[in-house]
Amino acid sequence: MRITVLAGGVGAARFLRGLKRAAPEAEITVIGNTGDDITLFGLRVCPDLDTVMYTLGDGINTEQGWGRAGETFSIRAELAAYGASPDWFTLGDRDFATHILRSQLLTAGQPLSAVTEVLCRRWQPGVRLLPMSDDAVETHVVLQSPGGDRGGRPPRSQQGPGERRVVHFQEWWVRMRAETPAAQIIAAGAAGAAPAPGVLDAIAAADVILFPPSNPVVSIGTILAVPGIRAAVAAKTVVGVSPIIGGAPVRGMADACLAAIGVDTSAAAVGAHYGPELINGWLVDDQDKAAADDPALAGIEVRALPLYMRDLPATAAIARAALDLAQELR
Amino acid sequence: MRITVLAGGVGAARFLRGLKRAAPEAEITVIGNTGDDITLFGLRVCPDLDTVMYTLGDGINTEQGWGRAGETFSIRAELAAYGASPDWFTLGDRDFATHILRSQLLTAGQPLSAVTEVLCRRWQPGVRLLPMSDDAVETHVVLQSPGGDRGGRPPRSQQGPGERRVVHFQEWWVRMRAETPAAQIIAAGAAGAAPAPGVLDAIAAADVILFPPSNPVVSIGTILAVPGIRAAVAAKTVVGVSPIIGGAPVRGMADACLAAIGVDTSAAAVGAHYGPELINGWLVDDQDKAAADDPALAGIEVRALPLYMRDLPATAAIARAALDLAQELR
Repeated sequence: MRITVLAGGVGAARFLRGLKRAAPEAEITVIGNTGDDITLFGLRVCPDLDTVMYTLGDGINTEQGWGRAGETFSIRAELAAYGASPDWFTLGDRDFATHILRSQLLTAGQPLSAVTEVLCRRWQPGVRLLPMSDDAVETHVVLQSPGGDRGGRPPRSQQGPGERRVVHFQEWWVRMRAETPAAQIIAAGAAGAAPAPGVLDAIAAADVILFPPSNPVVSIGTILAVPGIRAAVAAKTVVGVSPIIGGAPVRGMADACLAAIGVDTSAAAVGAHYGPELINGWLVDDQDKAAADDPALAGIEVRALPLYMRDLPATAAIARAALDLAQELR
Repeated sequence: MRITVLAGGVGAARFLRGLKRAAPEAEITVIGNTGDDITLFGLRVCPDLDTVMYTLGDGINTEQGWGRAGETFSIRAELAAYGASPDWFTLGDRDFATHILRSQLLTAGQPLSAVTEVLCRRWQPGVRLLPMSDDAVETHVVLQSPGGDRGGRPPRSQQGPGERRVVHFQEWWVRMRAETPAAQIIAAGAAGAAPAPGVLDAIAAADVILFPPSNPVVSIGTILAVPGIRAAVAAKTVVGVSPIIGGAPVRGMADACLAAIGVDTSAAAVGAHYGPELINGWLVDDQDKAAADDPALAGIEVRALPLYMRDLPATAAIARAALDLAQELR
């Protein structure tokens, strides 16, 4: 069986571990979000790709969900002693090595897809990991002006020229902890980006496409914003796993992202946001089982089951349910 | 008093600690060799500048003489796990931070002199540290073909086109441990390089120029190869400290470098190599006191004294002797 997964970071990486357990014989291709990528200290950092690679390659800090196990932080301390900025993004020494090598190869002219393949030769993640695009796409956040409603864009007339402040997604997410509401979230560069080599083929060749419980706006949404990907995905059998349980994100601050696009923080609203033209099946947690009768989800087969990825067996059961639903829907 | 010092790495750095002790009120400018600089993993490494900066800023691994105190080697291990090369140049995690920041600033368009100033703001070395040039000069070593005499260049007729192998100085020095004889040592790029801002002024304004016990070929020699520097130095009172004691380099493999330029490994031969047109005074170790009567050193005032830099007081005494001799000769 061929499975293609659109992946963000921690949630996707954990889901993928369960998927590998649930379908050990499957050929899995992972299309990773690169909108979170950022250049820090001259080095290119790809948080989502690395989280998937480290998790599946058994190099992850499992408690934290991101970063390397057994990390040390000499470089961070040194850069701080030099007064270098930014100081709000934590990178460990082991992790730095990945960014150093990646940057070296990128500067030498290799595309990110080829560089990711080189890095994966070491980690052997057991899946084919592709960046969504070799072109730079960066998620930027337009901050809401003071006085604007959270969840709505402030009227233009209220915005002075100095008020509209745009920050890199990581600055908003990590430094500001998404506490300043986002007026708009932009996948800068997406319109002109091309899917990385192999991406459209992996979608076309897939028996099933899965959306793990990743952020529907800045992870899955950004991947879908690369021209050609949404249409290719829509042509296939797609099953998604809700990242929202009981009205709250399981992890992270997806609610702040959903507010920016005017979508409620609920399993039903996220499923409806994808819509029946994109997804065929939608897994929600037992506590959200009412979504099965929600008219907003008409045309989508909804299944309720325990969705907390407490451990590997629980996660494998979720992945198994997604595959079973896909089998039914094909 | 204004003192300008042409500096290589470990020997110069230790001498400078003694000089600061001997002349605490002096205004010291250090012109550092950058011919040893190398780009590793996409990062620019300046071993001599860093050795001076770390030593005078109390960040050096004092036993080793180079690299940072309290180092860890996570990044090195990680890069090896990725199969990245080269694996023969040891960089610690703390040291990597310096190279990361330097490379970031260089890539952003800042010249090496400005970058060095930024790095020194942290280390406060107590001297003004200038790279010899902002232009890239790299010391390359032409390896002697098998069968060629050590110390001489093999006749051209014996060299096939594939036999003339040129390596970066660091590869010869660190990886090959200078065991393959050098047919020629080239300061690649020196002819087209300009002294960094402040270098010629610091030479012109100096009351005395000192050559610490640095490698006369690949450290002092490379600095002097930058157009304009040799003539500016020659116009001043110059006192040098022999890096050769009792027919052997105190540290490193200067003998292999001297062989490549046909100079004997002796205090007298190195003094004569600089010659009376460049240096006015030459300090040799007590065991080399015969050099004072060597006709090859005619025109150079030679003084014999204990030259091993065993500790800070011994080193300060050497620096004091150099300054005293300069005072006499002015």
